[in-house]
This record gives sequence, C-alpha cells and structure tokens, in this order.
Amino acid sequence: AHTRPARALATVDLGAIRRNVALLSSRAAESGAAAMAIVKADGYGHGAEQVARAALRGGATWLGACSLAEALALREAGIDAPLLSWLDAVDTDFTPALEAGIDVSVSSAAELARVAASAAHTGRRGRVHLKIDTGLSRNGCPAELWPALVKSAAAEPGIDVVAVWSHLAAADEPGHPSIDRQAQRFADAYALAREAGLNPLRHLANSAATLTRPDLHFDLVRPGIAIYGLNPVPESADLTPAMTFSSHVVLTKRIAAGESVSYGLTWTAERDTTLALVPVGYADGVPRTLSDRMDVWLGGRRRPVVGRVCMDQIVVDCGDDEPQAGTEVVLFGTGSAGGPTAREWADTIGTIDYEIVTGMYRPRVLREYTGGEP
Amino acid sequence: AHTRPARALATVDLGAIRRNVALLSSRAAESGAAAMAIVKADGYGHGAEQVARAALRGGATWLGACSLAEALALREAGIDAPLLSWLDAVDTDFTPALEAGIDVSVSSAAELARVAASAAHTGRRGRVHLKIDTGLSRNGCPAELWPALVKSAAAEPGIDVVAVWSHLAAADEPGHPSIDRQAQRFADAYALAREAGLNPLRHLANSAATLTRPDLHFDLVRPGIAIYGLNPVPESADLTPAMTFSSHVVLTKRIAAGESVSYGLTWTAERDTTLALVPVGYADGVPRTLSDRMDVWLGGRRRPVVGRVCMDQIVVDCGDDEPQAGTEVVLFGTGSAGGPTAREWADTIGTIDYEIVTGMYRPRVLREYTGGEP
Ligand SMILES: Cc1ncc(COP(=O)(O)O)c(CN[C@H](C)C(=O)O)c1O
Ligand SMILES: Cc1ncc(COP(=O)(O)O)c(CN[C@H](C)C(=O)O)c1O
Repeated sequence: AHTRPARALATVDLGAIRRNVALLSSRAAESGAAAMAIVKADGYGHGAEQVARAALRGGATWLGACSLAEALALREAGIDAPLLSWLDAVDTDFTPALEAGIDVSVSSAAELARVAASAAHTGRRGRVHLKIDTGLSRNGCPAELWPALVKSAAAEPGIDVVAVWSHLAAADEPGHPSIDRQAQRFADAYALAREAGLNPLRHLANSAATLTRPDLHFDLVRPGIAIYGLNPVPESADLTPAMTFSSHVVLTKRIAAGESVSYGLTWTAERDTTLALVPVGYADGVPRTLSDRMDVWLGGRRRPVVGRVCMDQIVVDCGDDEPQAGTEVVLFGTGSAGGPTAREWADTIGTIDYEIVTGMYRPRVLREYTGGEP
Repeated sequence: AHTRPARALATVDLGAIRRNVALLSSRAAESGAAAMAIVKADGYGHGAEQVARAALRGGATWLGACSLAEALALREAGIDAPLLSWLDAVDTDFTPALEAGIDVSVSSAAELARVAASAAHTGRRGRVHLKIDTGLSRNGCPAELWPALVKSAAAEPGIDVVAVWSHLAAADEPGHPSIDRQAQRFADAYALAREAGLNPLRHLANSAATLTRPDLHFDLVRPGIAIYGLNPVPESADLTPAMTFSSHVVLTKRIAAGESVSYGLTWTAERDTTLALVPVGYADGVPRTLSDRMDVWLGGRRRPVVGRVCMDQIVVDCGDDEPQAGTEVVLFGTGSAGGPTAREWADTIGTIDYEIVTGMYRPRVLREYTGGEP
C-alpha cells in the first residue's frame, strides 16, 4: 500500500475480468468448446498472474502466454492450469517447459526435435500443439511442410500431439474472405493430422471469432482482448473494460487570457482560466500524439487536456472551476458515465486499444486491483 | 547475463553519453556555467543510475530528476552529487529529501511552508530552487505571486534559496519569439529575488538552449535529450545517439506470391519471398502506427517490415536472402551506417524521439550497457 497517490495508477477490476470470461466461456460452451485465456505481455498490461487467476475463476480452463519466460512466471506464481507457450527463441531449451508441465507450440521439424530431446532427457512426455500457418504468415508451419511434420510428430515416441492450431488474420472484420479461406486450410491440415493417425484437439478462434463465429470454436477458443473488456466487434457482446487509468491534480493555477500552455505553446487561453496540472505523461503511457486532442474525466465531467502531452505531466483546462489538489483525474476507464475510454484514445491516434492498455505495462505505472479475490 | 538472446534489447552506450555530456559541459563552461544532467523517467528510458554516473564522469556536476521517488532512488544507488527534484505530489513530505541532501523546487507558499516544516523537524537546511512560470504554464509560480514568494523564502530561517529557475517552451525552434519573452520575465523575477535580499543561482536552459543560446546559460544548464545523443536542433552539434534497440530473427519462411502478412493482411507479396519473424512488438515499445512504414537493419542493409506490427512480433521481408535464425536485427540505433534512428520513427508517426526512447522503459525490454565503466 502506498501512502500518497501514485503519479499514474492503473486500476484493474478483476470482477469485470471474471464476468467477461464467464460470458466468453458460456458462448464457447454452447459450441462444446473450452476457453483458453490469453495473458501474454503481462496480461495485455493488466498483470498476468492476477488476470490468470480471475480468468480461471470466470470459467477459462486453459491459459496462453507468448514466451516460455512468461509461462514459467505463471507456474512460479503457483498457477497449475493447462498452459500453452508459442513464441520462443530458436535455441530454446524446452526442458524447463516440460518439467513445469507447459504445453509448447511446434511449427517445424527442428522445433519438434528439440522438444523430443527434452522429453528423452527428462523422461516426461512433450505435449505439443502443432501450428499450421493458414495465411497470417507469422509463425506456423507452411502447408507444404505440414504432411512431413504431422508424420514425424506421430512417430516420435516421447511426444503427445495435444492439438492442431492456427491463428486468424481478420476475424475482427466479420465477413472478411480470409476467414473462410483460413478455416478451409485449417480443415485440410487437420484432415492430414488425422490421416497420420493423430486425434488432436483443434483451436483457431481469437476474441473476434469467439464472439462472431461459433462454427469456428472447435474444442477451444483463445480470447485475449475480450477478457479485458475491450471488444474488437463492439455489437457482438456487452463487455466491461477492466482497466481504469488515473492520476490526480497536483496543483491548479489561474492564467490570463492570451497565455499559452506547454511545449510549442500550441494552445492559448481565450479568457482567464484555471489550469490543473496532472503528473502523468508519455513516460507513463499517455501517447504524445494525443496532444491537444484528449479529454480527461475530472470532477464529474469531461475536460480538455490543453497543449502538448509532456514526459511527466499534462495540463487540464478547468475554466472557472478550481478542483482541489488531490482530486482524482481519470484518463480512461469504462466510459460508462461518459468519460474517455482506451478505444477512444486508439481511434484518435489511429491504433487499437490493445496497444493502449498493453502500454500501461511500465515500471512507473502502479497497478491496483479491485473486484475481490482474483 | 542472459543465456539466450533477449526478445527486445536496449543497448546503451555509456561512452556516447560521456562524450555528449562532455560536449554540453564544455559549451556551458564557455559561458561560465555548470551542467545539470536530467535523468528523469529512468534516464529517458536509458537507466537513471547508469546515465547519472556516466554524466558525472562526462563533466556534469548536478543531476535533475522529476519526482522525489526518482531522486531518492539515485541516492539509494550511492550517487551523492547535487540533485534537484521538482514535480512532487501535493502532500509530499520533504523530510526524506532533506535527509538525503536533495534540493527541491518550490513554486508556491504552501510548498515553501512544507519544506520549512521539514527543515525545522530535521534540523537540516531546506535547499530550495524557486521556480517562476515565465510562460510554459505548467508548474512554477505565477508572476503575481512571485514577490510574496521570494519575500517569504528570504524570511524563512531554515531555508536556503539556492536558485531561481524556469523552463522554456520553444527553445527547439531557434528564434521563436517566446524565448526572448520568457528570458525577459526570468530577468524580472531574478531582479525581484535580488531586491528581496537573495543572491541565488539562475538556471533556465534545456538542451536546445544549451546548444543555441549561450546568453541564456546563466549559472547552470539543464540538458536532457542531448545527453542521450538526440539533438532537438540537429545542426547545432554533433552528438551520438546512445541507445540501440535490437532483437533477432527467430525463424525465416518462404511464402508464395499472393500470400499476405499479419493482421488485416495489409501487405501482399508480389513475388515469392523469404520472411523473417522478429520477436518484438508494440508491447516492447515498437509503435503500432509504424505498421507498413518502418525498416530494420538486418544483414548489413535496410529491409522493410511488412504488415502490421503485432503485440509481440514483426515480420521482415528479406527477398531472396535467408538470414540465419539468431541474426541480429537493429530496429533503431545511431544511424551511422544508414540504419533507422529513433528520430526517423518519431518523424514517421508525428512525435519526438524523446517519446520513442522513453518508451523503452518497460519490464520486457532488457537493457545492456557498453562503453566501459559509467
Ligand atoms: C496466437 C494467439 N492466439 C490468441 C490471441 C488472442 O487474440 P485477441 O486478443 O484478438 O483475442 C493472440 C493475440 N495476438 C496479439 C494481439 C498479437 O499477436 O498482436 C494470439 O497471438
Ligand atoms: C524542468 C526541466 N528541465 C530540463 C529538461 C530537459 O529538457 P531537454 O530534454 O529538452 O533538454 C526538462 C525536460 N522536460 C521534458 C522533456 C518534458 O517535460 O516533457 C524539464 O522538464
């Protein structure tokens, strides 16, 4: 517990995460699928460990992390749910993964050989999810190498092929032709795995497909952004944003009409006005490209940030109001009362809300949790 | 020391920092001024402690941090140079500052009273830098309250007024009329301090003014960005960017003409080509707004990043070259061989290089130091 207000505070509502996951899990359950909660990049900036616990309580039965380092950190925190890791360095030693009971993604014969070596070495089975590239062109096995990969995997004595999986490129644009094309390639890849004698699970759907394409749920869905309450297809479900980013007023001051504010003096007061200084800036994750085009929620209403966003501070125009030093300032949150949201920030600067919340994963931003036990 | 390559690595050349500081200090010395190196926001993302030591070796004799928390961390690291802290919360208890021998900025009577209380409580003198707002409209005392502030400060028995200071709004635009206007207001404020019987130091100049306005050096200059080798007025001096941001190839794959890459499939291969996957994305500080408009330095040349920047990865088009897994990929650096720079990123997305390097201050980015002892 800190004794004075943090300069920058990310408050994460774990109740919202539990409810969002419950909604996603029940949509998945309607198709007979389970849910893997994606908690990479420190839980999209929300805190991987706390989000993982809240997601498991909300009904997720699997967890997904991006690298072995992230996955091992979850195990070290005492979380023992099924867990998949998929973006590891070339020379990864999979032994710690196997020892910690972490499933690993395999996209190539070389990777398969490394997992098999760790299996032989540890006497543990290597649980692998074979990844097929169906059109995103990131990792995943190219189609022409797939038949050989499934055959080798089936023949490896130390390896269990738990799943065949892939990832969609444009599920957030429902109806995009790539979705069905990727689904078809996925079906072909799965058929080849069956021909090789395997009987793996299948998983393909991210948040957008979980919410809009029940026919692509298969055995497991992999929502990320939606568990945090940010919805890539807004009309598809009612989710609650889990993160509120806030600071407080450190001082107010009156300036005269004609005075300008912050670097480059881009904003000039048209009349005498009261400014409030808020100690949060681009070093805390407020994009500087929001300069002169963002509002905050202060004293029960929206107020404009005037002048450029600085490294450690922003300036809010309060007109003739005089907020007390210490007054809370919400930079973004649920938006339920009309305040700004991460989505609004993203739309303003031409990015996605994923980047906004993930950007809160910084040492200078204090995180606090509400909403009860994770 | 890590055993396998970090996903995202910020390498900081402390030799460059020492040399940049030496250049700035010698410019300052020509006007009889000393240099305070600004190391707030964890040294603009470079690591406050290491930068502080390198700057002191390079000739700086003061350090500046933004908050008491940052200043105290430097003291805890064993750095005992004169040190100023200036953006503290309303209810800050200045006692730890006084006990640690940290100078504090004072902009109001209320702040002065709190420092005086800590002085009385600890039996130590409160060393204050009185800040006048000369037109930036952030913190700093408004002109109409200044005469009272200097009088109270002069009358406080436990207080030493070490300096009068202010900050410039547009020094990076040499000739901007605000510079001389602020300088005039600064002169007026200083004259009032003298009339109140004080004989303080004066400091006003940031990097840009240090490099372009020797007449504004006064007793102390306060360069930040230039010590890191990024120059707000490029023609004014030859500095060396200290930070190189790099990653490595985790896999390469061949794709056929007509295949597209990454979310939204925004880029399509015109001919068969080799892609390299690099495990660094917007969660590591690569702005997603650089999607489809950034290059990396890979294998001795620039190559384009194709398709959208993802949370944890980017994809590089290598044409018919086949870089080995593990090959270093420089995202930005000195640019001396023709590779990308932080400045280039900033220009592309409409921000300043300050935000780019400060954005590397994240738990997932490993920092390493070169250039010898700080
Ligand atoms: C393999 C994989 N599965 C599932 C998800 C969850 O996606 P969503 O958050 O849209 O539900 C991701 C997220 N990807 C991120 C965002 C990326 O690579 O940029 C992923 O990489
Ligand atoms: C009071 C003060 N002095 C000196 C500096 C150094 O400025 P420069 O980096 O331009 O040399 C800064 C930096 N300000 C930052 C960048 C800000 O408030 O956004 C500052 O706030």
